[in-house]
Amino acid sequence: MAELRPPGWPFGAEVPLPSKVVCVAANYRDHAAEMGRPVPTSPRLFLKPTTALVGPGEPIPLPAGSDRVDHEAELAAVIGRPLRDATPDEALAGVLGYTCLNDVTARDWQRADGIFGRAKGADGFCPVGPVIAAGLDPRDLRVRCRVDGETRQDGTTADMVFPVAELLAFISRVMTLLPGDIVATGTPAGVGPLRPGQVVEVDIEGIGVLRNPVIARSPAGG
Amino acid sequence: MAELRPPGWPFGAEVPLPSKVVCVAANYRDHAAEMGRPVPTSPRLFLKPTTALVGPGEPIPLPAGSDRVDHEAELAAVIGRPLRDATPDEALAGVLGYTCLNDVTARDWQRADGIFGRAKGADGFCPVGPVIAAGLDPRDLRVRCRVDGETRQDGTTADMVFPVAELLAFISRVMTLLPGDIVATGTPAGVGPLRPGQVVEVDIEGIGVLRNPVIARSPAGG
Repeated sequence: MAELRPPGWPFGAEVPLPSKVVCVAANYRDHAAEMGRPVPTSPRLFLKPTTALVGPGEPIPLPAGSDRVDHEAELAAVIGRPLRDATPDEALAGVLGYTCLNDVTARDWQRADGIFGRAKGADGFCPVGPVIAAGLDPRDLRVRCRVDGETRQDGTTADMVFPVAELLAFISRVMTLLPGDIVATGTPAGVGPLRPGQVVEVDIEGIGVLRNPVIARSPAGG
Repeated sequence: MAELRPPGWPFGAEVPLPSKVVCVAANYRDHAAEMGRPVPTSPRLFLKPTTALVGPGEPIPLPAGSDRVDHEAELAAVIGRPLRDATPDEALAGVLGYTCLNDVTARDWQRADGIFGRAKGADGFCPVGPVIAAGLDPRDLRVRCRVDGETRQDGTTADMVFPVAELLAFISRVMTLLPGDIVATGTPAGVGPLRPGQVVEVDIEGIGVLRNPVIARSPAGG
């Protein structure tokens, strides 16, 4: 059997490895506005590959060929039991816990492609951690992002268009969520660019701080 | 360690389990035209979740809430060794073999969402098989799709906008491809709707026929 532990999976053997990272676009009204997007009437889903995962302290490499890579601080739910056609209550009860996630995005690639596979999928574009907090009520948590200590994003999960329970239930009607799967729940306003040498922090109330340095990506063998 | 074998993974233990399924939009000129899309100037990538995988003979469930689910017959490369910043020649040499893939798509969800996570990601929306053919030259293979015996798609991989070698090299500059990963290479013109009770076949020269029945999706516990 192949070893499928993602290169950057930071959690212990008690947390099942994720088969997928499911994300939602424009799930905060203020971020939809800053992106010039309408507030969605149903969740707009995309995926990040598990090869994008890195843990706390690991570098975020800025790929050659992109001139604009942004941070996006997000609350992420880690799934604890299989969810298919779950009600919102069943979905919440199926969450193992919550962690911080940085949905790193090459904004120029996102605009050029229209779809998000490249822009959201580069190696190192999905920092998660530092811990999985259980027993947290996800409905009103402060979500902040700092770059070199300066606050860039400061929102609350109370402003989500689709709250965590409804979002998980919706996803589970499309695709089965497996233990270990990660669902990123969208980002508040304030996204902005990262430069090599900076340190980016995602700080979520009740979880902790996910801190990653930003570097220029080295070519393989380089 | 969690069991990550995708529910529908049809191959034996000699084939590593995939961490991801990477796909490319509008990679045949005639399909770009039928979708009203320009021919892309660089590969437009998206992902399907491994929970969408099913093997030969397994049903494709049509989800409630979509009125239009289409077949898309595609040649898929199964990766044999890690690829990062690969040249086109290195990428081809890193392919374990080729298989048939049906990139099943809820067309109405795709149009509503603009991005493809939901439309391409439902359970059962990624049939693969029947075998992984090694030693195949992917540059000019006939790709056909039949529904209840009637030919719907009939193209050749020679008409790809980005041939397999270039496509794999491009992806490997963004995200590391791991052994077992599947890269679907786009679909020729002729995509069309599937109805419950039909049987859809993807037939690729040198590989064989991937055959799946189409059913209405049952709710969990239903």
